[in-house]
Amino acid sequence: MGTGQLATLIMQGFDGPVYPIHPTEKTVLGLKAYARIEDVLDVPEMVVMVLPTGIVPGLLADCGKAGVRAAVVTSGGFREVGGDGIALERELTAVAREYDIAMIGPNCIGVSNFNIGLNTTYFPYEQEPGGITIISQSGTYSCHIYGHTKRMGIKLSHTVSVGNSVIIDLAECLEYFADEPTTKAIAVYIEGIPDGARFVEAAKRASANKPVVALYVGGTGPGARAGMSHTGALAGDDAIYDGMLRQCGIQRATSIEELLDWCWALSTQPKAPGDRLCILTNAGGPGASMADTASRYGLRVPILSEGLQARLREHLPHTAASINPVDITFLLDYKALYDTIPRLLMESGEVDGIVMYGVFGTLLFRTLQAALKGRVDYDIENLVPMYMGLIEGFSRLPAEYGKPVLVSSFWGRDDDALEYLTDVGVPVYPSPERAVKAFASLSRAQSPRS
Amino acid sequence: MGTGQLATLIMQGFDGPVYPIHPTEKTVLGLKAYARIEDVLDVPEMVVMVLPTGIVPGLLADCGKAGVRAAVVTSGGFREVGGDGIALERELTAVAREYDIAMIGPNCIGVSNFNIGLNTTYFPYEQEPGGITIISQSGTYSCHIYGHTKRMGIKLSHTVSVGNSVIIDLAECLEYFADEPTTKAIAVYIEGIPDGARFVEAAKRASANKPVVALYVGGTGPGARAGMSHTGALAGDDAIYDGMLRQCGIQRATSIEELLDWCWALSTQPKAPGDRLCILTNAGGPGASMADTASRYGLRVPILSEGLQARLREHLPHTAASINPVDITFLLDYKALYDTIPRLLMESGEVDGIVMYGVFGTLLFRTLQAALKGRVDYDIENLVPMYMGLIEGFSRLPAEYGKPVLVSSFWGRDDDALEYLTDVGVPVYPSPERAVKAFASLSRAQSPRS
Repeated sequence: MGTGQLATLIMQGFDGPVYPIHPTEKTVLGLKAYARIEDVLDVPEMVVMVLPTGIVPGLLADCGKAGVRAAVVTSGGFREVGGDGIALERELTAVAREYDIAMIGPNCIGVSNFNIGLNTTYFPYEQEPGGITIISQSGTYSCHIYGHTKRMGIKLSHTVSVGNSVIIDLAECLEYFADEPTTKAIAVYIEGIPDGARFVEAAKRASANKPVVALYVGGTGPGARAGMSHTGALAGDDAIYDGMLRQCGIQRATSIEELLDWCWALSTQPKAPGDRLCILTNAGGPGASMADTASRYGLRVPILSEGLQARLREHLPHTAASINPVDITFLLDYKALYDTIPRLLMESGEVDGIVMYGVFGTLLFRTLQAALKGRVDYDIENLVPMYMGLIEGFSRLPAEYGKPVLVSSFWGRDDDALEYLTDVGVPVYPSPERAVKAFASLSRAQSPRS
Repeated sequence: MGTGQLATLIMQGFDGPVYPIHPTEKTVLGLKAYARIEDVLDVPEMVVMVLPTGIVPGLLADCGKAGVRAAVVTSGGFREVGGDGIALERELTAVAREYDIAMIGPNCIGVSNFNIGLNTTYFPYEQEPGGITIISQSGTYSCHIYGHTKRMGIKLSHTVSVGNSVIIDLAECLEYFADEPTTKAIAVYIEGIPDGARFVEAAKRASANKPVVALYVGGTGPGARAGMSHTGALAGDDAIYDGMLRQCGIQRATSIEELLDWCWALSTQPKAPGDRLCILTNAGGPGASMADTASRYGLRVPILSEGLQARLREHLPHTAASINPVDITFLLDYKALYDTIPRLLMESGEVDGIVMYGVFGTLLFRTLQAALKGRVDYDIENLVPMYMGLIEGFSRLPAEYGKPVLVSSFWGRDDDALEYLTDVGVPVYPSPERAVKAFASLSRAQSPRS
């Protein structure tokens, strides 16, 4: 696992000096290795320890003596296994306190800061840095998810796997990231919080500064049992946590997917000024699903005024619906679709943002063109500049009007328009309902403690 | 749109004769075109009509006179737009009845049967045929979703977009697919059902033969309004539909994603004999999330017996948990992971199936290898046969033991092991919670009317 973590660090492009410590190897992954921390002439800013449990406290003390003041302890086998592990964790904690070491862990995967290419996990993050910071009592949710974020185009700022949290815990992370400027939204994964009062104080301060969303899994018997054997977390009653999170101004997600979905919108889009959603679609089914979901998640889908509907209908085919959902059905006038109609809606004052289904680039045309080679020749490349110009303009609408635009599509980043939108911060959700739920989070974020 | 539909039909590899009808063109997409149906010497088994609304009834009559007995009417502008559309739809219905034409539509995208390469939608389905049939009041949900199914590896048998359903409706489709042998699970998208009694009868018969899952979106004000302007559907109270679906033995999904997620499991895996889930994981966070979700969705996560736990621990590291979730933490013994441990669980009689998090092939190794070129050389290809042999054996466990195995991973089909599993019918869900909800559907399917 240590080799994996070092490999990721190298791959991520961290450009500070890295000193592998290994009892026998002379080099590790091409880097000169050292037998002991004392052999390193420099004082490392941070150590990452992946070692058999029993020798961790002693070696952390050596690091402390060498002047190290920050540590990630990946090794497990402490409190979470009970028995001797509990005593070993006490010993480790005492060492960290004695040498004033800001220790993350034990039983964690550590920290990432993608702004400087730092990644102590064993998973590479193959994207640009973004605005979401993940603070997690699960190491997995701080790194395995990079496959998910890459596929979706969700971009991260930092991740912290707090593990057993004996020195640095969720509350301390919330305090830090409340003011950390690249963090635009904070995702928190919780199995149990031992010091509720401290957490509440930190969480209130953080959520006053930026949106915070939490996933709490300890509120059911099996969830609590799993958390106990995972990080030794003490879980509590679901309703109590629910109320506590609400009091802190923290939105509660029900799955890891929702946690990231919502933070994606919250870290890239303006908050919705209210709860009035406009659904813009080229397909009736997604329009109806989105309207139904909006209603179930506390949003209104207001009937548009006669005047606005009349202005919209100037640009719509006769089969279209203008009431809201605005269902354009089949429209080849892309200027109307990506510019005129969204602007009429954004300017109207009748809605607080748009969820749009039916944005697409050239993927479908390219697929058909490849299949019809010889039967028909049309030059897709000629269309691209016009098309992408409209998509670029469309992506700037949220900033222009101060209202969010979210997109839903069954295609993903293999389509050029959808790739562009996610790159520049317009989330594209893989199902209509998920886009609407993310919009609801943008609406709730406007008045977090209501 | 007609050109798009023809392009898809060609691309899909339909090998029967296709006759484009066009008033002026001599060829369409390389096929000889005909000015009128009467000019075609053959009697086509089915016509697809994409025409201005007003001329549809007259031309359908021409088809009827020519002997055509099946039609897909894609054209919209009928009942769903009100006014003259209502009268035109009556006229069209009378024509279909007069000539005994099995008509799908109007205002629909038609039918697909991937077993014979028939696809009248304008989206290509780029996969092998599978076991899910979609019957939908939304054309979009019968075809736009092919991007989603391809990305996930979900395989379809048929799709039917019923549109305004004046001749063939949801009930008739349910009657047909109840006995259609390639259909293993039926997904139904509903905006409103005009003839409840007929639907209930057909649905009860279908769900007695195979699992049926429905998404109903007309139960909220905005959902009902959207459905009305979409297909002119008359929606009804949410609670009434909820009870009606339950009485029919139909499971109710809350989103299009869930509809397909559940049908994926139902069309590929054995039903769960009961409600006892075993969670097998290499990561504590997903283990805890899955346990929590299981509890919320009516599943039990039973504590395994002392005897079984002891047998499991023979193959687990000391940091692992054996209680359930079985959290293997960090284990490089792939034989134990994919064979010994799952078999102990399946044979135990203590659980009704497994949801596993932590299946992976070589994607991570390949990514790291590429990044570390020159620093380290290890030959992934040597590992592949051993690895894939274990994955193949793992994929056969559900059939061997008559209990389902579902997988969750944040990677997708870009990983070789996950691609293989989805190809052979072990669903891989992109989030732990979705895998558990799909398992719950396999458990409910065992006693559909309870």
